[in-house]
Amino acid sequence: MGQASSPINFIERSVLEFVIAPHLGHPYLQSKDFNGMHAMELGLYTFADVNPNPSRSKGAEGAERLKHLIEEIELADQVGLDVFGLGEHHRPDYAASAPAVALAAAAVKTKNIRLTSAVTVLSSDDPVRVFQQFSTLDLLSNGRAEIMAGRGSFIESFPLFGYNLEDYDQLFEEKLDLLLALRDSEAVTWSGEMRPAINGRGVYPRPFQDPLPVWIAVGGTPQSVARAGALGLPVALAIIGGEPHRFAPLFDLYREAARRAGQDQAKLKTSINVHGFVADTTDAAADQFYGPQAEVMNRIGRERGWGPTSRPHFDASRGPKGALFVGDPEVVAEKIIAHHKLFKNDRFLLQMAIGLMPHDQIMRGIELYGTKVAPIVRKALTESGEGAKASA
Amino acid sequence: MGQASSPINFIERSVLEFVIAPHLGHPYLQSKDFNGMHAMELGLYTFADVNPNPSRSKGAEGAERLKHLIEEIELADQVGLDVFGLGEHHRPDYAASAPAVALAAAAVKTKNIRLTSAVTVLSSDDPVRVFQQFSTLDLLSNGRAEIMAGRGSFIESFPLFGYNLEDYDQLFEEKLDLLLALRDSEAVTWSGEMRPAINGRGVYPRPFQDPLPVWIAVGGTPQSVARAGALGLPVALAIIGGEPHRFAPLFDLYREAARRAGQDQAKLKTSINVHGFVADTTDAAADQFYGPQAEVMNRIGRERGWGPTSRPHFDASRGPKGALFVGDPEVVAEKIIAHHKLFKNDRFLLQMAIGLMPHDQIMRGIELYGTKVAPIVRKALTESGEGAKASA
Repeated sequence: MGQASSPINFIERSVLEFVIAPHLGHPYLQSKDFNGMHAMELGLYTFADVNPNPSRSKGAEGAERLKHLIEEIELADQVGLDVFGLGEHHRPDYAASAPAVALAAAAVKTKNIRLTSAVTVLSSDDPVRVFQQFSTLDLLSNGRAEIMAGRGSFIESFPLFGYNLEDYDQLFEEKLDLLLALRDSEAVTWSGEMRPAINGRGVYPRPFQDPLPVWIAVGGTPQSVARAGALGLPVALAIIGGEPHRFAPLFDLYREAARRAGQDQAKLKTSINVHGFVADTTDAAADQFYGPQAEVMNRIGRERGWGPTSRPHFDASRGPKGALFVGDPEVVAEKIIAHHKLFKNDRFLLQMAIGLMPHDQIMRGIELYGTKVAPIVRKALTESGEGAKASA
Repeated sequence: MGQASSPINFIERSVLEFVIAPHLGHPYLQSKDFNGMHAMELGLYTFADVNPNPSRSKGAEGAERLKHLIEEIELADQVGLDVFGLGEHHRPDYAASAPAVALAAAAVKTKNIRLTSAVTVLSSDDPVRVFQQFSTLDLLSNGRAEIMAGRGSFIESFPLFGYNLEDYDQLFEEKLDLLLALRDSEAVTWSGEMRPAINGRGVYPRPFQDPLPVWIAVGGTPQSVARAGALGLPVALAIIGGEPHRFAPLFDLYREAARRAGQDQAKLKTSINVHGFVADTTDAAADQFYGPQAEVMNRIGRERGWGPTSRPHFDASRGPKGALFVGDPEVVAEKIIAHHKLFKNDRFLLQMAIGLMPHDQIMRGIELYGTKVAPIVRKALTESGEGAKASA
């Protein structure tokens, strides 16, 4: 990729699809028209970070953050991004502990974008409640809801909801099993050790989509990746440090685990979820993103015993092999394309709104991501035949 | 009350308040301007009923019902009604099992109306999750969320979430205690027998309102009414049969229990929640409402061993002393005013969307309730001095 400049860069994609596409017969747009699906979905996710020590009323700050969040999702939809994910955390530094509730507000303000948790900490939740909430979200959005289920990278939810961290694996395994049973049939009979049994009861409302998509979010544990494959579920891999290309073999493991379990390869999907930011220039992107991202990584790092980050480390990480996708639209697009060649991922999610990133910078970043990055990526994938492959 | 005709009947109230009221100096409008509160709040609630045996896809029907629900809440807001409540049920005949999720969609489509569960079945839920969901709703609505907590008139949720009906009272008592602790302070230490203990943990996000309103919903059990009073919590009394005036002494019991417990009388609030419908003529209201309401009452009645209802019984119930508030705007307004004289209630909630009431009839009913019933009721209360009392 050079300084690619697609003619559709500056035009809202949804307009293009309905007005211009039939006349142009652009291959990507055709595949979207015919299949309702991109070669690779491009999206965003956030945990709705807030200042953990606000001088203002916490309520007022939380209300402003959620107002901005809804505006960010609306803009992401308007510029044609495919997915928006919202995390679940139980800490003073995040406003999102009930992602389906906030996403429901976004559902009635958007038209096309898919709305997912990122992630639902399934281990410490009740799968029946999770299913009901996302089924309701699915109805409100006419079939755009997804659950991204994970074991949780934070552990605050375990003592809060009365779970034992020693049961970490069994909790996730059993609750995932129940969640899948709930989406597979209306009346469910289930029993396990971690949650009361259900004896032939129906769970309502039923979702719009059948089945309601359930992704498995993983942090790099091979067993988790293999489990997702064996279950034939889509897998989302978070990469927030190191060299992403080293994780690519995990998706081979995923596909191999699926093959061995006899799962339909057509049902498999992969996503990589990373930190990054897009601005008009690469210098501006780096300067704007460094402070908030480093503050978060250092704050979390102190809890977990990581060493502090630094600007030189940050700058190295935004190089071609590093984990950060930070730059002007061409730089970020090229990095997304290069990693797609390694991962063959079906989805790419970027966490731009991290820490106390100013709302106006996030809005500009979303605009650039949708109107400049996405067209470059889609054009490259179409030309390389990925578009045809994905829509086959 | 005769055929009162207020000059503001047909004008959207929110416009009036900001444009006309300062010039007119209307007493009611002044009290709203100065106190942000009505002498008596008027509102609606529904359980988002759906056909339990749809011929169409359940998902499509659920999506249509929720789309209509959001439109109904939007209209209720536009015509100046004060409150909209949504139930929680775990049955195929209702689309609402996660009320905070559906209300969040309404939050970003409305400006003034308060949004409440009606009811949250607290006994079988986790108060931490309930608080988080309604706190998120409160942030999304800039402080318009409320929880109406009840023990639940249906029992489906108990086996679904692994609770024992023998613990009915203790479950509610403990979970209410925890819910109140969560809203009273950010870090909570709590223990009980029905839910794992919490040891000094914070629960987030914090709501916009401090405190987030928690009402107690009761079905007529004196102990429940007295408990609400002793705790100094607002109480909502559902009256769906018999002669409402016979329940009025319960509110005396409520106020007496509060007085004995040393609760601030200014914090006390009461609501009556009833079935009813408004149409252009009383005959039309009765004819449109009878079928769907009778179908629901007979269906539920078969489960509970009630005798079947009938049109003569229905017609008797919509008389001055009966439980149904059905008629043209004047008839319904007079009945609301007459019962307000008995109950001195601060809120009146009407369940119009029951069973398979057609959406267009519900929309017309909401329009009439807001633009014709409400002005008559408010004018009567203002003239009787209730407005001055409530705003004192």
